[in-house]
Amino acid sequence: MKLYDMALAPNPRRVRIFLAEKGIAVPRVEIDIQKGENLAPAYLAVNPRGVVPTLELDDGTILDESIAICRYFEALQPEPNLFGRDPLEIARVEAWQRRIEFEGLFNIAAAFRNSRPAFADRAAPGAGPPTPQIPALAERGLRLALGFLDMLERRLGESPFVAGDRYTVADITAIVCIDFARWVGLKAEEAHPTVAAWHQAMKKRPSSSA
Amino acid sequence: MKLYDMALAPNPRRVRIFLAEKGIAVPRVEIDIQKGENLAPAYLAVNPRGVVPTLELDDGTILDESIAICRYFEALQPEPNLFGRDPLEIARVEAWQRRIEFEGLFNIAAAFRNSRPAFADRAAPGAGPPTPQIPALAERGLRLALGFLDMLERRLGESPFVAGDRYTVADITAIVCIDFARWVGLKAEEAHPTVAAWHQAMKKRPSSSA
Repeated sequence: MKLYDMALAPNPRRVRIFLAEKGIAVPRVEIDIQKGENLAPAYLAVNPRGVVPTLELDDGTILDESIAICRYFEALQPEPNLFGRDPLEIARVEAWQRRIEFEGLFNIAAAFRNSRPAFADRAAPGAGPPTPQIPALAERGLRLALGFLDMLERRLGESPFVAGDRYTVADITAIVCIDFARWVGLKAEEAHPTVAAWHQAMKKRPSSSA
Repeated sequence: MKLYDMALAPNPRRVRIFLAEKGIAVPRVEIDIQKGENLAPAYLAVNPRGVVPTLELDDGTILDESIAICRYFEALQPEPNLFGRDPLEIARVEAWQRRIEFEGLFNIAAAFRNSRPAFADRAAPGAGPPTPQIPALAERGLRLALGFLDMLERRLGESPFVAGDRYTVADITAIVCIDFARWVGLKAEEAHPTVAAWHQAMKKRPSSSA
């Protein structure tokens, strides 16, 4: 088994934190997206989509989507449980995980990929045709991401963890999201004290440095 | 139990098809987004986010995310299985379901919400602050959605169903996606014969009229 990874990118980090929480070690191969290594022939031979992370199983099977990779390991090794145990918890974890993605991660990614010179013609991820940046979308992403921080501030005021009373994959997505937000100049500090306190607590978990 | 629904919208339809495949009946309440009923006080009292679908349980618990609602019912009533059985199938269904969403549904939604007069200041879903449309994003969405149809054409040339050899939630997302694509003028016909044939087969399932 082999994990094609990029230390700095948010989606691969979700998988690394997930694996650390499970106590599972997988050999990793670093792919530098900013240098375009994900679009080089060597990597496209592994994953024609040119995205990371990619998990390669021993028989050559490829899984190339971060949450799908997490679910694979959850099914292989159910404990510690990170996707919920009973119908209602499973639904709540899924709802929060997706909400953090759609309102947080995707808007931050829109702000980032539509503004950084390194992604000038690669505003959409992966190996598709050139996608020019849309400055208005970078602005919208930033504005909606700020609204996301406000929403998360309210949520963490009513719940110790994102999806309820214990740590789940929804927290993993949120940790990565808060760290990624700094790349576009958004910090959860004075204006979002509850998010900042939760983030400090999360950083104390050994998995957060994965 | 009660499902706040909108007959024409893609996300609520995913839940209705899912429930039909499971053989589960849930009373529904129609909310018309185009008329703004999702932003009226009566509905915001149920769901402050102002999105559909929303599942209200008998104790008042709210689940307001389509795939989370599907997972709730999958956990309550596991058969017929729609999210995968073993680790690899679970991962493949998740990877395809998400890929159809991210490359298909989201791009079609971007094309739709950033161009239709009815969504002039509501380019982002739900009850947040006004979000002006971005015409360049509508164009990008349309272009990427066409690339998605090409990708799905290749995929369905190698696999009878989206995620493998049987019907899963990934097909449900894809059915909704192909029907939604017509709203922005994209049709899977001559140029995508494999998608068109799969779509015809899917339409014969009683669930597809849900």
